[in-house]
Amino acid sequence: MTYCVALRLDSGMIFASDSRTNAGVDHIATFCKMRVYEKPGDRVIVLLSSGNLAITQGVINILDRHQKAPQGESTIWSVTSMFDVAALAGDALREMQQRDGKMLMQSGIEASANIIVGGQISGEDERLFHIYSQGNFIEASDETPYFQLGEAKYGKPILDRVLTPGTPQKEAAKCVLISFDSTIKSNISVGLPIDMLWYPRDSLRVGVQQRIREGDPYFSMLRQRWGGGLRRVFGELPDPDWME
Amino acid sequence: MTYCVALRLDSGMIFASDSRTNAGVDHIATFCKMRVYEKPGDRVIVLLSSGNLAITQGVINILDRHQKAPQGESTIWSVTSMFDVAALAGDALREMQQRDGKMLMQSGIEASANIIVGGQISGEDERLFHIYSQGNFIEASDETPYFQLGEAKYGKPILDRVLTPGTPQKEAAKCVLISFDSTIKSNISVGLPIDMLWYPRDSLRVGVQQRIREGDPYFSMLRQRWGGGLRRVFGELPDPDWME
Repeated sequence: MTYCVALRLDSGMIFASDSRTNAGVDHIATFCKMRVYEKPGDRVIVLLSSGNLAITQGVINILDRHQKAPQGESTIWSVTSMFDVAALAGDALREMQQRDGKMLMQSGIEASANIIVGGQISGEDERLFHIYSQGNFIEASDETPYFQLGEAKYGKPILDRVLTPGTPQKEAAKCVLISFDSTIKSNISVGLPIDMLWYPRDSLRVGVQQRIREGDPYFSMLRQRWGGGLRRVFGELPDPDWME
Repeated sequence: MTYCVALRLDSGMIFASDSRTNAGVDHIATFCKMRVYEKPGDRVIVLLSSGNLAITQGVINILDRHQKAPQGESTIWSVTSMFDVAALAGDALREMQQRDGKMLMQSGIEASANIIVGGQISGEDERLFHIYSQGNFIEASDETPYFQLGEAKYGKPILDRVLTPGTPQKEAAKCVLISFDSTIKSNISVGLPIDMLWYPRDSLRVGVQQRIREGDPYFSMLRQRWGGGLRRVFGELPDPDWME
């Protein structure tokens, strides 16, 4: 399983992904699920992926191979809109499904994969897309300024309670980490390290990139104080009086 | 969708179910998903159900019909162990799957259903079972003193953080209601009223039965103060200092 979140805020974008993969509980490994394409002053594109790892690694390789594409062919480095980037990623996903899907299906193995891609290309505003397993995609809006991949439910309530496009970047990063805490607590197939990236709007370069490992002092403090705070609020609420 | 929770505490058992059903978003209705069989001094059995409503109503009807079963046949009123009750419910589920499953599958309609059944029969301790769609079942233990049905993920973190078999009944009821709040907030296919039942251990009679409707003063207060408390705790936590 996987957990990834991406936010499109007024001040910029935050991307975060866990790094646990598993093929059955007896085959667990660590893989980075975040891929960054940066050309300072021109574009920053961040891709998060969930689902079948062979499929998503294939997608990345197809996008990377484009770098050596013949002149004139659309690549992740040449397109002038994030919409075209999402289309390229969707096409790459379809190419991989075409290649592997039938064989996987014959063995009853899930070939599905989902991708979040976001960032900014010079001349455009920052944009965020969710690409479905079929290669079609949707874009985030002010009403829904975030997307999640994978094990989304445990960590969704805190995002819904706190986040708006106007949430300050640090507060939003804190919220994302609490969302990861809830998810990691409830699903052992989501695990550390967490890769986090902060992209300041209109900067056209990566702001901060951070890998949060087991024992990270800030994340450990956050987990402990959040859990304690929840129990305190819970304890302060009155009990039902009809429950005799 | 559905959300149901049942707890087996040292002091007794709590059962709770929402009452929204839907066959597509344009066909939403209210049905009670809790069924109580009580013979004071002898047994209290509570059944919660999720999944295909025709299937679960069929299960209840099969169990009810047993009341008129020929002398000597096992019924929910005659068996001497909650284990046998779970087996009866599992058999009824299999009977319904047998009857409707094939026709539903031909139309691509989900025939699955899950049941929680718990309570106490004179001569035995209180017991709690989760019956799967295939009719097999598992029993709750001290390590896992609760079961959920339906849309379980949003409401699970608070149960995991707070509940143990030793949690006092009122505090456990409060925890269950907060778990419902998180679920209702995130999934519109789970809705009020909530049916709640408290069974005091070894009493062999229903303790309290309560229907929590829209505008219920206690539940409204709980939702508001819980949301406010979460945001307060969130606000008190320090921001990450590496997020410049």
